[in-house]
Amino acid sequence: MQSIPNWLKQRAMLTPHREALTYGEQSWTFLELQQKSEQYAQRIVRFLLNKNAVVAVLLKNRPHAVWIIHALQQLKVQTVFLNKQLTSEELTFQLKDSQAALLICENEFEVILEELEKKTLRVVTVADLNGMSQQPIDKREMFALDDVCSIMYTSGTTGKPKGVLQTYGNHWWSAVGSVLNLGLNEKDTWLCTMPLFHISGLSILIRSVVYGMPVYLMEQFDEKKVNQLLQTGKITIMSVVSTMVQRMLTDLGEKNYAPALRCLLLGGGPAPKPLLEACKSKGIPIFQTYGMTETASQIVTLSPEDSLKKLGSAGKPLFPAQIRIISEEGTAGAHTVGEIMVKGPNVTKGYLNRPDANKASFQNGWFLTGDIGSIDEEGYLYVLDRRSDLIISGGENIYPAEIEEVLIAHDAIAEAGVAGVEDPEWGKVPYGFVVSNETVSEAELLSFCRDKLAKYKVPKRIFFVKTLPKTASNKLLRRELTALIPS
Amino acid sequence: MQSIPNWLKQRAMLTPHREALTYGEQSWTFLELQQKSEQYAQRIVRFLLNKNAVVAVLLKNRPHAVWIIHALQQLKVQTVFLNKQLTSEELTFQLKDSQAALLICENEFEVILEELEKKTLRVVTVADLNGMSQQPIDKREMFALDDVCSIMYTSGTTGKPKGVLQTYGNHWWSAVGSVLNLGLNEKDTWLCTMPLFHISGLSILIRSVVYGMPVYLMEQFDEKKVNQLLQTGKITIMSVVSTMVQRMLTDLGEKNYAPALRCLLLGGGPAPKPLLEACKSKGIPIFQTYGMTETASQIVTLSPEDSLKKLGSAGKPLFPAQIRIISEEGTAGAHTVGEIMVKGPNVTKGYLNRPDANKASFQNGWFLTGDIGSIDEEGYLYVLDRRSDLIISGGENIYPAEIEEVLIAHDAIAEAGVAGVEDPEWGKVPYGFVVSNETVSEAELLSFCRDKLAKYKVPKRIFFVKTLPKTASNKLLRRELTALIPS
Repeated sequence: MQSIPNWLKQRAMLTPHREALTYGEQSWTFLELQQKSEQYAQRIVRFLLNKNAVVAVLLKNRPHAVWIIHALQQLKVQTVFLNKQLTSEELTFQLKDSQAALLICENEFEVILEELEKKTLRVVTVADLNGMSQQPIDKREMFALDDVCSIMYTSGTTGKPKGVLQTYGNHWWSAVGSVLNLGLNEKDTWLCTMPLFHISGLSILIRSVVYGMPVYLMEQFDEKKVNQLLQTGKITIMSVVSTMVQRMLTDLGEKNYAPALRCLLLGGGPAPKPLLEACKSKGIPIFQTYGMTETASQIVTLSPEDSLKKLGSAGKPLFPAQIRIISEEGTAGAHTVGEIMVKGPNVTKGYLNRPDANKASFQNGWFLTGDIGSIDEEGYLYVLDRRSDLIISGGENIYPAEIEEVLIAHDAIAEAGVAGVEDPEWGKVPYGFVVSNETVSEAELLSFCRDKLAKYKVPKRIFFVKTLPKTASNKLLRRELTALIPS
Repeated sequence: MQSIPNWLKQRAMLTPHREALTYGEQSWTFLELQQKSEQYAQRIVRFLLNKNAVVAVLLKNRPHAVWIIHALQQLKVQTVFLNKQLTSEELTFQLKDSQAALLICENEFEVILEELEKKTLRVVTVADLNGMSQQPIDKREMFALDDVCSIMYTSGTTGKPKGVLQTYGNHWWSAVGSVLNLGLNEKDTWLCTMPLFHISGLSILIRSVVYGMPVYLMEQFDEKKVNQLLQTGKITIMSVVSTMVQRMLTDLGEKNYAPALRCLLLGGGPAPKPLLEACKSKGIPIFQTYGMTETASQIVTLSPEDSLKKLGSAGKPLFPAQIRIISEEGTAGAHTVGEIMVKGPNVTKGYLNRPDANKASFQNGWFLTGDIGSIDEEGYLYVLDRRSDLIISGGENIYPAEIEEVLIAHDAIAEAGVAGVEDPEWGKVPYGFVVSNETVSEAELLSFCRDKLAKYKVPKRIFFVKTLPKTASNKLLRRELTALIPS
């Protein structure tokens, strides 16, 4: 089995005095990161009765989260990353499903945890941990690439959430694939406002130790703070989703970012073209990308030379990866819409204890993403939608993203979401949900859509709402839109 | 077995229109590189009767060499790289030892080849190949990392040359390890004046396709041409050995290089400190490195922040690799001199058909380099010498490089080499061989050495010679020095 040196230990040995982490006014070098992580490992070790234990974390984007995440890798445990927006029922499911033996959580979450069944689970807060004495631990020299490093739950299209197994190798190859596309400069600093319990956040921490690159960590996304920071020249790369960029542009107004900013890496689903065009017209280096929990972040990304030329495409696969479109007739040719399949060493080896889902998701070493897209004759991927959001209406396929793009193009509309609603005549019909920033009537919007969309794609109703439902990483939750329909 | 997409095909798909190769006034994109290589593959395929065939190449640094090297990878053959300075006897040995079925050579080498036994070997010149028709070939989708890509012969300390097996994985991990140390900028262009039949040259071609980075190829090193080029700003990285840098500095005089030049990667043995200091004083970004055919080029390299701070050290291991010093007492502590051992996925899996050498060279997954060095308390490697050059005199160890450094520090001396000569009293004693650039006497040099070296290290004799014996990649051949002693 292929292995690499323990990445934290190796990085701290190679470039001990290089900056590793910045949080507000404080900074830590890679040597300090290693020391802090080792201290946490020496406190956590008392709870680990068996090797290959599973430990869950329920943490915010704070420095101790970074140290604890690395500490758990030093202890060779599999870390379950819990989303802080989950209900206690959802948390209970994930803790039981993963058979976690320990849960480490922020002090303020303790109250939630009292509701959790604790019989088979130890719960410890960060404050508790900080007060504990340290015990010596075995130093881990190597990371076997096939060992599971992290487990993150995804909802999938139906049924209970599934635990995605992410190996050290998945993370390693993801980091390597990204560097071969984006390059690596001495001045690179990656801004992380994505939650660390999502792959978009965790992958930044791993790139940091693999590349020897500082991470600027923020507890949460705040467009004003981000915009100020991006004007200083301290940040060169930032991971974003569409709604974040939308808010950043609105706040930015006539100002612009420092030239040091070389990449806004845009993930989390298809991006509205007007947004991409707004970035292009301001010269903001936005790179669309496509990835998911199962691919340990990006697997398809635009290259620097294409970032502003190929607006609307998610790009080409990272160097170690491959993509393919399959339709009912098999592998699809250029421009044919079908399901996106991916392959590569960054792709998960499967879901925890879900033989059926694993059987359904893999085919000859290829992973079926469930997402819909096409590849053009040059090899660029266009992601049309997540399959679960597909609206089939009178036998026609409707992709919500296409309608949302039209709605957002209207001057009065800040954000839009579209979902299918049961209809006796057509099976499903699209409904629109919009956040407006000036007065506009439903009739006017419908007329605007009729100008731009085939008749069957025009929403049957459009509702004005204050906010759209989103995940913690700011992805639109289309399946929750219909709950916004006034009763 | 881990595999990655065929690196040439993947690169041509990802960035088809990016520049891949420049030679004189001509340039080719990655798409053109792939097309040229495919054309050669379609001509060569007629000679390949069995799968996993071995094909030898005897080529100069010319564009068709690049295409043929990639063509052979497309055909999944193992390529034996022959040194163009070899005698026909030496060539015959390597061709027989590797059981090569075909030899592709430059037109001008045909005359040498007539001397070779051709019974079991087909020989074809580049001109022959160019005139042949093309046959369809099976496209190779993936490269299995464990498959042998190239075979290069090394002389070792004693006995016949041994064929070093370099896998696709060795080359891949070498390229990845280097990018994590040196970074990768959009404007990077690597100047290759090292022979492509050496790992120092071949590894540049592989980095080119893995990184999507252009290579500027020169048929041979010429300090005047190189200096002109490095002043234009077109080159950002260049691989060099000490003697090349020495000649470049002499020619450069008061001028300096364009700021775009960010790395002179200095391999090929311990570097004289005066040379490193001369570079430092001119602000030339010289990065010492340590590697060998068995490690698919660099395995230890200085990082950008240390390149001018840690003069004299070869640096720290590349990210996926590890180093260790062993002395007779086992693994040595900081500053203790011993044999350098290396480990990592870029290290060869062994020598072709040499079970004894393989047994002697590997120990628990570590490769014994035969070279002598020490590691300081921060993890920096200092290479003292190649073990085969070690002079043991009266029980004391003498490292030629240390004496050469002293000789070169004398104003009158341009180049120096030191080797051990049999001595009835002391076992061996060091002899010096120098190229002088102004008049100086042997007595004066000996007196200069006595000022700087322990008595047993002072050469017994110093001879003035016109040139020093060197390998094709300009490494000093210490074992041939004693042939220069006047009879």
